[in-house]
Amino acid sequence: MFHKRHPQVGAAPGTLVIPEDAPTPRFRQILYSIDGLKSDRPITDLEELEAAPESGVSWVDIQGFGDRRLLVELAETYGLHPLLLEDVVNVPQRSKVELHDDNLLIVLRMVKVEEDAKITIEQVGIVLGEDYVLTFQEKYGDVFDPIRKRITAGHRRFREKRADYLAYSIADSIIDHYYPALEVIGERMEDLEEEAVVAPTTAILQKIHHMKNRLINLRRALWPQREALHSMVWEPNTLVGEEVRLHLRDTYDHCVQTTEVIEMYRDMVSGMINTYLSAMANRTNEIMRVLTIVSTIFIPMSFLAGVYGMNFVDMPELHWTFGYPMFWSLATVLAVGMLIFFGRKGWLRPQETKQVNDPE
Amino acid sequence: MFHKRHPQVGAAPGTLVIPEDAPTPRFRQILYSIDGLKSDRPITDLEELEAAPESGVSWVDIQGFGDRRLLVELAETYGLHPLLLEDVVNVPQRSKVELHDDNLLIVLRMVKVEEDAKITIEQVGIVLGEDYVLTFQEKYGDVFDPIRKRITAGHRRFREKRADYLAYSIADSIIDHYYPALEVIGERMEDLEEEAVVAPTTAILQKIHHMKNRLINLRRALWPQREALHSMVWEPNTLVGEEVRLHLRDTYDHCVQTTEVIEMYRDMVSGMINTYLSAMANRTNEIMRVLTIVSTIFIPMSFLAGVYGMNFVDMPELHWTFGYPMFWSLATVLAVGMLIFFGRKGWLRPQETKQVNDPE
Amino acid sequence: MFHKRHPQVGAAPGTLVIPEDAPTPRFRQILYSIDGLKSDRPITDLEELEAAPESGVSWVDIQGFGDRRLLVELAETYGLHPLLLEDVVNVPQRSKVELHDDNLLIVLRMVKVEEDAKITIEQVGIVLGEDYVLTFQEKYGDVFDPIRKRITAGHRRFREKRADYLAYSIADSIIDHYYPALEVIGERMEDLEEEAVVAPTTAILQKIHHMKNRLINLRRALWPQREALHSMVWEPNTLVGEEVRLHLRDTYDHCVQTTEVIEMYRDMVSGMINTYLSAMANRTNEIMRVLTIVSTIFIPMSFLAGVYGMNFVDMPELHWTFGYPMFWSLATVLAVGMLIFFGRKGWLRPQETKQVNDPE
Amino acid sequence: MFHKRHPQVGAAPGTLVIPEDAPTPRFRQILYSIDGLKSDRPITDLEELEAAPESGVSWVDIQGFGDRRLLVELAETYGLHPLLLEDVVNVPQRSKVELHDDNLLIVLRMVKVEEDAKITIEQVGIVLGEDYVLTFQEKYGDVFDPIRKRITAGHRRFREKRADYLAYSIADSIIDHYYPALEVIGERMEDLEEEAVVAPTTAILQKIHHMKNRLINLRRALWPQREALHSMVWEPNTLVGEEVRLHLRDTYDHCVQTTEVIEMYRDMVSGMINTYLSAMANRTNEIMRVLTIVSTIFIPMSFLAGVYGMNFVDMPELHWTFGYPMFWSLATVLAVGMLIFFGRKGWLRPQETKQVNDPE
Amino acid sequence: MFHKRHPQVGAAPGTLVIPEDAPTPRFRQILYSIDGLKSDRPITDLEELEAAPESGVSWVDIQGFGDRRLLVELAETYGLHPLLLEDVVNVPQRSKVELHDDNLLIVLRMVKVEEDAKITIEQVGIVLGEDYVLTFQEKYGDVFDPIRKRITAGHRRFREKRADYLAYSIADSIIDHYYPALEVIGERMEDLEEEAVVAPTTAILQKIHHMKNRLINLRRALWPQREALHSMVWEPNTLVGEEVRLHLRDTYDHCVQTTEVIEMYRDMVSGMINTYLSAMANRTNEIMRVLTIVSTIFIPMSFLAGVYGMNFVDMPELHWTFGYPMFWSLATVLAVGMLIFFGRKGWLRPQETKQVNDPE
Repeated sequence: MFHKRHPQVGAAPGTLVIPEDAPTPRFRQILYSIDGLKSDRPITDLEELEAAPESGVSWVDIQGFGDRRLLVELAETYGLHPLLLEDVVNVPQRSKVELHDDNLLIVLRMVKVEEDAKITIEQVGIVLGEDYVLTFQEKYGDVFDPIRKRITAGHRRFREKRADYLAYSIADSIIDHYYPALEVIGERMEDLEEEAVVAPTTAILQKIHHMKNRLINLRRALWPQREALHSMVWEPNTLVGEEVRLHLRDTYDHCVQTTEVIEMYRDMVSGMINTYLSAMANRTNEIMRVLTIVSTIFIPMSFLAGVYGMNFVDMPELHWTFGYPMFWSLATVLAVGMLIFFGRKGWLRPQETKQVNDPE
Repeated sequence: MFHKRHPQVGAAPGTLVIPEDAPTPRFRQILYSIDGLKSDRPITDLEELEAAPESGVSWVDIQGFGDRRLLVELAETYGLHPLLLEDVVNVPQRSKVELHDDNLLIVLRMVKVEEDAKITIEQVGIVLGEDYVLTFQEKYGDVFDPIRKRITAGHRRFREKRADYLAYSIADSIIDHYYPALEVIGERMEDLEEEAVVAPTTAILQKIHHMKNRLINLRRALWPQREALHSMVWEPNTLVGEEVRLHLRDTYDHCVQTTEVIEMYRDMVSGMINTYLSAMANRTNEIMRVLTIVSTIFIPMSFLAGVYGMNFVDMPELHWTFGYPMFWSLATVLAVGMLIFFGRKGWLRPQETKQVNDPE
Repeated sequence: MFHKRHPQVGAAPGTLVIPEDAPTPRFRQILYSIDGLKSDRPITDLEELEAAPESGVSWVDIQGFGDRRLLVELAETYGLHPLLLEDVVNVPQRSKVELHDDNLLIVLRMVKVEEDAKITIEQVGIVLGEDYVLTFQEKYGDVFDPIRKRITAGHRRFREKRADYLAYSIADSIIDHYYPALEVIGERMEDLEEEAVVAPTTAILQKIHHMKNRLINLRRALWPQREALHSMVWEPNTLVGEEVRLHLRDTYDHCVQTTEVIEMYRDMVSGMINTYLSAMANRTNEIMRVLTIVSTIFIPMSFLAGVYGMNFVDMPELHWTFGYPMFWSLATVLAVGMLIFFGRKGWLRPQETKQVNDPE
Repeated sequence: MFHKRHPQVGAAPGTLVIPEDAPTPRFRQILYSIDGLKSDRPITDLEELEAAPESGVSWVDIQGFGDRRLLVELAETYGLHPLLLEDVVNVPQRSKVELHDDNLLIVLRMVKVEEDAKITIEQVGIVLGEDYVLTFQEKYGDVFDPIRKRITAGHRRFREKRADYLAYSIADSIIDHYYPALEVIGERMEDLEEEAVVAPTTAILQKIHHMKNRLINLRRALWPQREALHSMVWEPNTLVGEEVRLHLRDTYDHCVQTTEVIEMYRDMVSGMINTYLSAMANRTNEIMRVLTIVSTIFIPMSFLAGVYGMNFVDMPELHWTFGYPMFWSLATVLAVGMLIFFGRKGWLRPQETKQVNDPE
Repeated sequence: MFHKRHPQVGAAPGTLVIPEDAPTPRFRQILYSIDGLKSDRPITDLEELEAAPESGVSWVDIQGFGDRRLLVELAETYGLHPLLLEDVVNVPQRSKVELHDDNLLIVLRMVKVEEDAKITIEQVGIVLGEDYVLTFQEKYGDVFDPIRKRITAGHRRFREKRADYLAYSIADSIIDHYYPALEVIGERMEDLEEEAVVAPTTAILQKIHHMKNRLINLRRALWPQREALHSMVWEPNTLVGEEVRLHLRDTYDHCVQTTEVIEMYRDMVSGMINTYLSAMANRTNEIMRVLTIVSTIFIPMSFLAGVYGMNFVDMPELHWTFGYPMFWSLATVLAVGMLIFFGRKGWLRPQETKQVNDPE
């Protein structure tokens, strides 16, 4: 439910915690300026890193933390504070925006919908400098291909912007990816609700709770991003320009919208628990109903049969010519009377247990 | 449950997302000044747009986004920022008031009660400039006819006001339309409560939850308007005059009132779930009651009949002259005794299941 | 549940909405100064209105809005802004305190306990000017008689105060009237709880919910008064003097106290729903208990009787001399055994269903 | 549930409301300075009141409000504002700290655990002047004896402090007394939980709710003290010195701690309601279990007995030599089969209903 | 549930409350500077305490409060305010950071996972001076060994830092220890949920509530630390340097993360109560199901047997050759019909009661 990779407690601050099976780091540098794309290539040795072109931007993308030495070296190259490096490597941290001397650390959560509709959350650390952007991810694979395409495909509008615009684009792309994830969750919730009505088992309830826990977890992961983006829009610093702040306001609005949807989902899941409990009570009612109908129809008739099974020497009915047919008539009258009584109570119609679609 | 039309993730900011089946834009321009109505006509070509008359106002109303080129052209005509255009076209956005250089963007939600009492929510984007107001809606049909009538019918009081007063009137008209919608919802809630008491089925519970979800959704849509209107009243800018701010304070109060009513409705819906569960438990009780009465009356009598059906050679009662009548007397005494017992318990009166009207 | 008299949507701001059956306005003017009561009389023509005596106060009390022309004329006489007039006439508005140019609008809710213990809520609009106070009420009848008596009975301490003190006295009197209303509600809640325990029917549950809804409604009506009074105490303006603000602090405290009590009541009502559900479950238990006791005592005995009703040719017991008495002995032993078992389980004592008084 | 002694509504502000049976006031004055205790005696006539010794403190303790004239006279002697006097006499007021011209009013709630573990709440009004402290209580008896002892027993450290230190000591003593009260409540809650598990009756549920209501009430009484003490620590005035503010910070912390404990208790009481409902459901299950076991064991056997009680002319089993023993064998097999089935289901073990102690 | 060691109510402030069985204090002083470790030894007499080396740090660790005189003497040595000493000795206090004249008091809660997975909470009082740090604990044993090791093992990076860095390291170490404790709690919660599904007894529910109470208690203990650390990061004082504040921001983030996880746990525990109640209802359903199946199958057959046990003189079926086999055929048809009916209802499959693992 909750796992944070934390250093050995009491370790010196800045200690990097890298699991044994961490993938080898892959570096990729993209250099561009208003004059066009200068280079886009994987880096294997930090020596290959180039400075940004004049009034241009250098974007170094690091995926995989499997080499401590390389990460520390990179940090030294860009003058990153050890605490900043700890924040991007010891995932997950709380989302935040932190101004260091000459760079801005932005910690966000990337939500991806995998092919099997599984939803994964991963931290992306973004470091924004004067003319560079570094992005750190623990695992391979990201959601930034459209940005790379816009850079490499020669969108002049993109290239004439500075590093802050690239950082904004990355943050915006991360937030944008929440919408498909929320749609996937919404669909699953509809499925779950149908199951809860049709076949209310404790297993379904647990699925509902796991859904709720996932939403709680998601909310916990995304909520701090509101603050982070808010401070990115409104707190003064020289790294983020006015034009980009205008764009970030929209990103912030989208972020608020997604957290509101998650809140709404939580409320809905709570409602589903009620639906489940009601469907379950319905089930009990249904069982009770059958028991009651069968019992109350036959019990009086059985009594009657018992009466005429008695061995009193003087029971006139037993000797009547139509005694036996009269017994059956009486029994039938009793049974039909009960059925009419139940019919009036509405107990002969089974409770429907089908999913009801919202009429609107 | 939740659908936001969002651009392909990672798309450049300002990308307009227009669905394939979007209706063709309809433009209508109204020009008026203190001297009277200058013109009120549909526009088919942007060339036909006229500037506002001196100390007058130009209101361009755009309905339908089915022509990207036209929208962009319009934006250029009025010098709208691409992000502003994105906000009014890529619906729905969070309600907000955003000051751009020389215009103010107001994003609100219009709530309409359709003929079949269906409630629809649609975004209205209002752009307020020095001497013009633009309104953007995704679909045809709005709630502004009374305003048009007040302009065209020659209300001098209206015409002598500036563009900010027109923008206020539009916003006020939008908020005013919430009241009839809330009344429709209130009536439906009363119907639902009655159904929940009279015939508690899981289908009713689901209707209650859908009602709750709609209220949650409505709340999510309307809540940000409070902030938006609040900032419109109190944040300094040159576009909204003091006199109009005074009017806007009332609009803000009405907006707060409507959200408070929605909160109240949510509490009431929660109460309805309790009512439902209670009515359901009542149903179980009712079934149990009948089962218990029938069973406990007949079981002792059946035992008695069983006793006298035994084949012991020496059972004196069987040979008594009044043996059989005595059996019936005994059985009747048992049954009547049970009925008196149940009568005292109050179990012979069925639980009422009729809707109770509030005595006050 | 919710009714707000709102103007035809889209109507011009300041439009007064007066229902057809509104009572004819009754005007009453009281003029007093430190020198004594100058006049106290009903006004039928606005011409009769007199200016306040020197360093004195004029209190005009308007009850009933059945004459639009008169109200507008009055507003012009005192220079009231059209929006202010709309706020006091188009009831109910949110409670608020609004500073206009030369007067202060105070919108409060008056709560009256009628003779049949019915509680009514009505808006009182108070307009405080330099030397006058106007009070607006939709219906006849108010709670200000003690104030009138203090003025007319010659309390010097009252007369030497200015108009702000009169406005404070009116507001204080309104808030003071909440206490008896809260006591009435408290008593009703105790009655309801007793009913819920003794006779838990769905009708009772609905009564509880209506009580809850009334409290929610009351809370919604009273809550904004906290803000209103708070701003009246603390926001600077020249109309309310320091001495009166000191008094208003106490009024504000009382207002806070009443809303806290309402919150407490809401919590208690939620508890009553639990009590109701528990009493209902108790009822089911009680029914089950009787069914179980009767069934399980007689079912084994019936089996025994069935056994000796069998027609096997060779059943030695049937021929024993004491066969029949032995059957009865056995049956009695079975029954008594069951009774002892149930006695140990504590199932022979009925669940008490009487109201329990708090021992403290 | 809620009783506030309020003046006749509409009465002039400052009206003292004294119940008929209010006890006669008892005055006691303690005078001390750094030089030692000057006097400690009951006062019967206000003339006997002495001024504080130089750089000393006068503490007048008033218990019982049964003499309006005396109270007013006292207020005049010390120059107390009529509103201040109203606040200390018309109990209960919201806790608060209010600065008047030359004295500070502190309204707190004293919680006492009486001998029979009953908890009482009473208002203490403290008026702090330059060199005096007045304390007002409605009833006889307080919690300040340790303070008196510290003064009279010659603690130099106490005597060298000024009046603000005395006021702090009184407030601190009041807050300190919450801890034993909270412990008493905690013990009662543990008792209640045990009762709820062992014997869940509606009476227990009501006890739980009364406990909850008491906690809600206590919370309502204590919560405003946080604000009051906070403002006493942080709001600037000349009456409370820096050294004393340092001490008050600790008192404030303790006050916060007690309200947090009350919040925690409320959460726990909510949990107890669940426990109660679960224990009740357990009870139903237990009844059902016995009914099911007895019924399902005997019903098939009874059927068998019924079969062999039939009067068909040709039923070979009836004539078999071992027919009757075979019947018993078959019946036993059926019964044992059912018992094994129930044993496997775990239904033969009664549900435990004993209180479980927390393993930790 | 709640125990605070508080002085006799009304005692003088600064009174130390030391339980009779408090362990004898153990003092240990570590002296170090950039030049290396100067000394690390237990102290038995306060005379042995040495001043910090130049630009070095003196860390005195006090465990056990069993000697009042020694504690007071120490306080005098370091010039600690009596209220400060009270705060560190009279545990537990609310977590806080308080600036005194020349030192900073930091009150935190240390959470330790004992060997048997028991979780203990203990207060740690940290006093930060210019060149010294004092740590106070009530019991022996702490979580600071890694820090001691870093000092003594000659980490230059540690030794060149000042006292504020040592205080930060201690606080950071305390917060870091929450993660393993949270993991232990998480595992226990998973165990509890499984138990709740498999065997829902009231004992399990009580365990769940005790878990919830522990979380509430933990939350109450940890929440104030957020404020404390926040003020330590942001409130200006000369004792905490800029560099250390940067580190403290991370500690603050971790503290926020842990409280968020506790909140999440609380939500999950609430969900577990639902699971429990559902599993319990399932159990009832299961019992009902068996009762219903057995009863409704045999009751009609018993009626049939009863019919043919009647003694009417003229019952033709009794004399039919295949009368008896026909009875059995009819009974079988009835039973099989019922079984098919139940099969269609899905009542022949038992409700699964196994723990469901989250598919994701």
